[in-house]
Amino acid sequence: MAPPQSAPRITVWNEFRHEQKNPKVKAVYPDGIHTAIAESLRADGFEVKTATLDEPEHGLGEDVLSATDVLFWWGHMAHGEVVDAVVDRVYARVLEGMGLVVLHSGHFSKIFRRLMGTTCDLSWRDTGERERLWVVAPQHPIAEGLGDSFVVPQAEMYGEPFDIPAPDELVFVSWFQGGEVFRSGACFNRGQGKIFYFRPGHETFPIYYQAEVQQVLKNAARWAAPTPSRPKTGFGHRPQPLESILAPEPA
Amino acid sequence: MAPPQSAPRITVWNEFRHEQKNPKVKAVYPDGIHTAIAESLRADGFEVKTATLDEPEHGLGEDVLSATDVLFWWGHMAHGEVVDAVVDRVYARVLEGMGLVVLHSGHFSKIFRRLMGTTCDLSWRDTGERERLWVVAPQHPIAEGLGDSFVVPQAEMYGEPFDIPAPDELVFVSWFQGGEVFRSGACFNRGQGKIFYFRPGHETFPIYYQAEVQQVLKNAARWAAPTPSRPKTGFGHRPQPLESILAPEPA
Amino acid sequence: MAPPQSAPRITVWNEFRHEQKNPKVKAVYPDGIHTAIAESLRADGFEVKTATLDEPEHGLGEDVLSATDVLFWWGHMAHGEVVDAVVDRVYARVLEGMGLVVLHSGHFSKIFRRLMGTTCDLSWRDTGERERLWVVAPQHPIAEGLGDSFVVPQAEMYGEPFDIPAPDELVFVSWFQGGEVFRSGACFNRGQGKIFYFRPGHETFPIYYQAEVQQVLKNAARWAAPTPSRPKTGFGHRPQPLESILAPEPA
Amino acid sequence: MAPPQSAPRITVWNEFRHEQKNPKVKAVYPDGIHTAIAESLRADGFEVKTATLDEPEHGLGEDVLSATDVLFWWGHMAHGEVVDAVVDRVYARVLEGMGLVVLHSGHFSKIFRRLMGTTCDLSWRDTGERERLWVVAPQHPIAEGLGDSFVVPQAEMYGEPFDIPAPDELVFVSWFQGGEVFRSGACFNRGQGKIFYFRPGHETFPIYYQAEVQQVLKNAARWAAPTPSRPKTGFGHRPQPLESILAPEPA
Repeated sequence: MAPPQSAPRITVWNEFRHEQKNPKVKAVYPDGIHTAIAESLRADGFEVKTATLDEPEHGLGEDVLSATDVLFWWGHMAHGEVVDAVVDRVYARVLEGMGLVVLHSGHFSKIFRRLMGTTCDLSWRDTGERERLWVVAPQHPIAEGLGDSFVVPQAEMYGEPFDIPAPDELVFVSWFQGGEVFRSGACFNRGQGKIFYFRPGHETFPIYYQAEVQQVLKNAARWAAPTPSRPKTGFGHRPQPLESILAPEPA
Repeated sequence: MAPPQSAPRITVWNEFRHEQKNPKVKAVYPDGIHTAIAESLRADGFEVKTATLDEPEHGLGEDVLSATDVLFWWGHMAHGEVVDAVVDRVYARVLEGMGLVVLHSGHFSKIFRRLMGTTCDLSWRDTGERERLWVVAPQHPIAEGLGDSFVVPQAEMYGEPFDIPAPDELVFVSWFQGGEVFRSGACFNRGQGKIFYFRPGHETFPIYYQAEVQQVLKNAARWAAPTPSRPKTGFGHRPQPLESILAPEPA
Repeated sequence: MAPPQSAPRITVWNEFRHEQKNPKVKAVYPDGIHTAIAESLRADGFEVKTATLDEPEHGLGEDVLSATDVLFWWGHMAHGEVVDAVVDRVYARVLEGMGLVVLHSGHFSKIFRRLMGTTCDLSWRDTGERERLWVVAPQHPIAEGLGDSFVVPQAEMYGEPFDIPAPDELVFVSWFQGGEVFRSGACFNRGQGKIFYFRPGHETFPIYYQAEVQQVLKNAARWAAPTPSRPKTGFGHRPQPLESILAPEPA
Repeated sequence: MAPPQSAPRITVWNEFRHEQKNPKVKAVYPDGIHTAIAESLRADGFEVKTATLDEPEHGLGEDVLSATDVLFWWGHMAHGEVVDAVVDRVYARVLEGMGLVVLHSGHFSKIFRRLMGTTCDLSWRDTGERERLWVVAPQHPIAEGLGDSFVVPQAEMYGEPFDIPAPDELVFVSWFQGGEVFRSGACFNRGQGKIFYFRPGHETFPIYYQAEVQQVLKNAARWAAPTPSRPKTGFGHRPQPLESILAPEPA
C-alpha cells in the first residue's frame, strides 16, 4: 500500500531539572523522564532522539527539528528559560507539519500557550490521588489498544476549568478521587501540524512506566506524524484569477 | 435593539407514567415531572404548556408543535409507546427550527436517537451517589449564572462511554462518586434546530427542584429558541446557474 | 512499529443500474463504477471486493461485512430498493468500527441519512460545469499527496445548503462555476466507525478515473480503517461502583 | 424573562489611516469605516463608541475596555503600530468575556493572531470581483434575517488556504468569481470570550453600507455579548479535595 510510511522520527524534549535537583525524582527517573519515554518508544520501533533544556539551543537546532517528525515536550519549573528563538523555531515547524505531543505540566510551556492562544491555566492538587481516564472518542487512533478506561494509581490532580480552545477531538476525560474532572487527552490541528495534549505524567510518580500510558504515547506518535507528501501551503498574492471571469453583473 | 425577541413558547413533554404507578415517585413529583419543570420555567417568564404520553397524539398535535419554540422531553419506561407519526412530526419541526431539550433518560427516546444517528447507549448505576457537574465551556449561554461547578447530592449515575456524535459544543462534564465521568450537557445543531441534552434528573430524586438545575433549563430554553426570521432553507433542483459562466476551459 | 497494520480490506458497493440502462453511462463505466473504483484501489495494494444491489442481500451478507474494514457506497436511482435489513446490518457494523466512504449521490442513501440523523438534502444542477476542490484541513490524512486545490473539469453541481450535521472534520470545500460552494469532503465519527462523505463522482463524467480523485479515495480508505485492537465498548448496567465511596456528604 | 439583558455596549475600533491618506477611500468612508459601522449599529439600538489608532492608548484605555461588551476591529496597513500593551489588555478582556468581532484585513492584526495561535495567512486578489456568501449553519444566530446566500457585488478576494484553527462554528463560506472559496464567517470561543471573524469589507468598496452586511454585524454584536452573570473562572491551587476520599486502593 503506497505511500510506504517509514517509522516517524521522534525527538523527546525534557526540561531535565527536577531529576537532577530532587533525589526523590531521580529515584523514579534516574536518567530523566526523556530517557524513560524514549526507551519505551524505541521498544516499539520508533527512531528516537532526546534533547534537554541545558544543551546548546536546548538541543533543538534547525538540523534536529528538520529531522523530527514528532516532538514530545515535558517541562515544568523552567518554562521561562526556554528562549524565544527556539520557541519560534518549534512553532514554525509545527505549522509546517511536525507533530507535537505536550505532556502534563507542559500545558504551561511557551510553545503550547502560543499555539493555543489561551492561558492554558487549570486547577491542581498534588496529593497522589487516583485518576481514571475514560475514552470518549472510541474510534480515535490514540485510543487504539485500550479498553473503555484505565487507572493511574497515584497522580497529581489537574481539574477543570482548563483554559484551552475546544479541542478538535477530545479523546480522554479524567476522573479524580477528590471530585474533579479534566479533558486529559485533546487533539488540536494548527497549520499542517497535529498537536496532542496528554495530561498524565508527573516527576514523582512512575507514570511513564505504565503500560497504558506508554500505549497512548505510541499511538500519539503515529497519529501526530505528518502526511509524507503534501507541498507547502501557498499563501499570498494571487494576481491572476484561476477562472476566466465575466465582468460583474447584477446577481 | 431589533428584532425584539418575545419569550420563547415552551412545551414540556413527559411520559408521566412513573408518577402514576410508583408512590415513591408520586411523593417527589405529585403532579408529574412536567408540572415541576413547567412551573419553574413560568416563574422565569416563559409561556409554558405541557403534554403527556397518554393524551391524544401524545399531546403533540400539529397545532401544538407549530406554536412551540422549544420542546422539553422526559421519557423512560415507555419510549416504545411513542408512535412513529408523532416522532416524525417532532423530527420535522426540529429540522425547521424548533429547539429540543432532551432530559436524562430521554437519551433513549426515539426522537433523540433519530436525530443523533447513533444508539445513544451508556452505562448506568442507580445507587443515589453524588454528581458534580463541571463547566467546560465557560463562555456558553447555557452556563450563564453558574459557577465553575455544582453538585447534585443524589443521582443515578450515567457513565461513559456515551454513544453520541461528538457534540457541537460540550458545556458540562459530570463526575460521579463511583468513579465515572459523563458528557452531561451537550449541544447539537440539526437543520435549523438546536438540541441540548442535559443529563441530570431522575424520577426518585428531587433534582428538578434544585436551583442550579432550574437555571440550566432556563438557559437552555433561551439558547434553543429559533432565530425569529430565517426563511425556510431552499433545497432541490436549481437549473439556472447563478452566474453567467463561460464554457469550461482547462484550469 | 507495532501494531503492524495490514492493508485494509475494502468492499466497494454500487447500485449498478445506470451503467446497465443508459448507454452513455455504460460508455464511461463499461464494467460499472464499482469496478473502476476497485481497480484503482487494488493498484494501490488494497484487498478489494465489490458488491451490487441486485446480488442476494445486495452482496452484503454477514460474512462479507464482517470481513470488510472499509465499505465504499455509490447509489442514486434506487436508494429505496435497498432493504432495511441490510441497512441495519451496515449500520451496526459502522458503529462497531467498519469505515464507510459515501460517494456523491450516496448522500441520499438510507445508510448515510440514518447515520447523520438529518435529511442530507442539497441543491443541484447538472450542466457539466467546472468544480474546484479546496483543501481546508491541510494536516488531514485525506489531503495527503494533494496540492491546495484541484479541478474536476466537468461535474454535476451540488450546492449549499447541505443538510448534514457540522462535520467532525471538514477537509474539502468545492467551488462551482455557476456560483455555488459545497462542503465536499467531510469526516464524521459515529460509534467506533469513521465515515467520509466525498462529493465528486457522477455516472456520466469520468471522474473516478481522475488521479486526484483516486488519491482521495485511497487516502480515505486508509483513514477510515478501524483501529485493529479495541475491545467492544461496554454499555449497560454497572451495579458496582468502581471506587469505594463514602456516604454522601454535603458539598 | 430574567435576566433582562440590556443592549450590549459596543466599541468600534478602526485604524483610520486609509481614509485620511487616500482620497478614493475618503470618498467611500468620509468619516472613517468606524463611523459607518457605528451608525449602522446605533440605528439598531446598540450603545456604540468608537476608537482609533492615533488616539492615546489607541482609544482603548482600561476604562473604555471595561465598559465594552463587544469590540469590533478593523485594521490593515498599520497592524505593527498597535502597541503590545494595548494588545495585552484587549487579549485579557476577551478571555474575561468581552466579545470580539474581527473584520476583513483584521485577520492579520496582532490581537487576532495571538488569539488564534496561527499565522492567519491567506491568499488574496484585489480586482473587484463578485463574492457570494453561503450560510452553512442555518440555525446560527449570526445567520438570523438572511436567506441561503447573499452577494457582495465587488470585493477583494480572500481565498483558501486560510491558516486558522478549525472554527468552533462555521457560519459562512464565500464563493469568488475568480475560482476561490473562503471560510468567511467563523466563530471561536476563547476563555469566556466569543470571537467572530467576518471577511467582507474593504476600504475602497462600500460594503459596510450593504444591508445584509449590516445585518450580520448586528447579529454578531448580539451573539458575541458576554453572559451577564458568570463569576470569574477559578484557576490555581486547590489544596483541599472536594470529596472525602479513601486511601488509594487497587482498581
